[in-house]
Amino acid sequence: MGNEGRAARPVLLVHAADASGRWQEALATALPDVEVIAAPSEAAAGTVDFFAGWNPPAGFFAPLSALRAVFALGAGVDAFLRRPDLAAHVPLLKLGDAGMAAQMLEYALLGVLAWQRHLPAYSAQQSRAEWRALPPTSRADTRVGVLGLGAIGAEVAAGLARFGYTVGGWSRSVHSIDGVRCVSGAEALHALLERSDVLVNLLPSTPRTRGLLDHALLGRLPRGACVVNASRGDQLDVDALLELLDSGHLSSAQLDVFATEPLPRHSPLWRHPKVRITPHVAAITLLEPAVAQIRDNLQCLLDGQSMSNVVDRARGY
Amino acid sequence: MGNEGRAARPVLLVHAADASGRWQEALATALPDVEVIAAPSEAAAGTVDFFAGWNPPAGFFAPLSALRAVFALGAGVDAFLRRPDLAAHVPLLKLGDAGMAAQMLEYALLGVLAWQRHLPAYSAQQSRAEWRALPPTSRADTRVGVLGLGAIGAEVAAGLARFGYTVGGWSRSVHSIDGVRCVSGAEALHALLERSDVLVNLLPSTPRTRGLLDHALLGRLPRGACVVNASRGDQLDVDALLELLDSGHLSSAQLDVFATEPLPRHSPLWRHPKVRITPHVAAITLLEPAVAQIRDNLQCLLDGQSMSNVVDRARGY
Repeated sequence: MGNEGRAARPVLLVHAADASGRWQEALATALPDVEVIAAPSEAAAGTVDFFAGWNPPAGFFAPLSALRAVFALGAGVDAFLRRPDLAAHVPLLKLGDAGMAAQMLEYALLGVLAWQRHLPAYSAQQSRAEWRALPPTSRADTRVGVLGLGAIGAEVAAGLARFGYTVGGWSRSVHSIDGVRCVSGAEALHALLERSDVLVNLLPSTPRTRGLLDHALLGRLPRGACVVNASRGDQLDVDALLELLDSGHLSSAQLDVFATEPLPRHSPLWRHPKVRITPHVAAITLLEPAVAQIRDNLQCLLDGQSMSNVVDRARGY
Repeated sequence: MGNEGRAARPVLLVHAADASGRWQEALATALPDVEVIAAPSEAAAGTVDFFAGWNPPAGFFAPLSALRAVFALGAGVDAFLRRPDLAAHVPLLKLGDAGMAAQMLEYALLGVLAWQRHLPAYSAQQSRAEWRALPPTSRADTRVGVLGLGAIGAEVAAGLARFGYTVGGWSRSVHSIDGVRCVSGAEALHALLERSDVLVNLLPSTPRTRGLLDHALLGRLPRGACVVNASRGDQLDVDALLELLDSGHLSSAQLDVFATEPLPRHSPLWRHPKVRITPHVAAITLLEPAVAQIRDNLQCLLDGQSMSNVVDRARGY
């Protein structure tokens, strides 16, 4: 009887980035009516109803023939969309915020403050034991351009504006954010770049945005500008960035994401004096809010209601 | 008649840090009833009523026998108090905020964010081309201790608390600041240091605070803590700081002020990998608000009313 009861419960397969088992445990606690498993036996693959996790190995989804929904444990789902083993009819869910917006605001603010307060220049002076004050710039005179105004980008733009920076935001569809001048479209992007001392890229990786930040676009930034990239590495032309840093057109870059991760040891980015590198840690998925989102969405699905943060496959996010 | 009219006006002598003449010009515009001069002829020294400026050369005040008030163009007046040529009966005025609090908040926030987001560790990893994520710390779990809660320190503590950090403040007299746990007294200082991941020193330089941040006190900070000094260099024992950085007890320091400025080229601070040096730029006096404060205070004095920000010589600030 107990076994029959268990067998009747829907099955959620968890594939977490860390092997601690804490994601499986937290999801099992949050979803008492769901059977949470860490790995399907080959025979049971066809009984898996739901998946939650980061991008699993190639072919992982092929045997999961009864899959009813995939919950990505992140905001960026580009890797899921490129998988041939994941059928397009299976709903794909991204995380809305899950504690990431607050972290991303910190990461962006670090980049903006470092630019505003001449951190790279003072660091270079320090290496020469040079004592020289540089002209101050106020927050209001520091112009920040935020690309991407989704759940995370909107919070970042609003937070930077609340702190007193002059913030412009660009996104595919027009948004409205308190204190932020929001624009949309290709021409508006050019105009925004031309008045961005710090460019913060938080766009989703889609066919439209891959390679977007190329030499022509980065060259529109004002002389001495800084680039912060914290969404996906495939959007930024690294060769163009290095050329613009070396020519002095750009003053610095703060990079968290790269086309290949971990960033290969031979990459010139590691050793560039104007580049600050962090290992894809700008915004880490936090367990509690992520589990709460998956629980709520799964409950909606089981109750026949519509879910939140369903990925639009045509749009790519 | 014109000359008689001019001679009747009180005389304000300006000694600015920069030679641009902009301070003299701005004060002359703000104070049409005052004669603003840049240098007294020897004969006229006895006619100078007021002084406004940064710390002038030794002996500068000796011939100014009729001086009725000295307006310091900064918040820290320790150098003025140590001068034998400035009579103790002449009122000494400091600036209240004058745009410095906003800048100081940025400088402190840069230090706190750098600590919270592992900037020194990631920078060290970058130099080794090492890709390794470190455990995240939330703002609420980042404990900041602010020493000094005057016009500037209070704003810094409040701003850090508003942004979500756990902030404690210590000062000579007890203060009350929204969101900040304010304490006073020697024992409370010890307790505050023991729970400060980042220590932000904004105390005025007085006989009580000089040398305050010695080995014993800095050693009370939790392992891995960071020290931000942005008030005066004479409060921090640099040898103790270096020892605690080298032993690994402290993780980093962000220093804007030094016992000798410019910081001598032979100082080991310049080359220390865990020390971030800025050349006394954390909070620069802004012309407009400073001139407005001096204008208002001078008007009060001329009208026989009490002035703001009069320095208490016994207290030292």
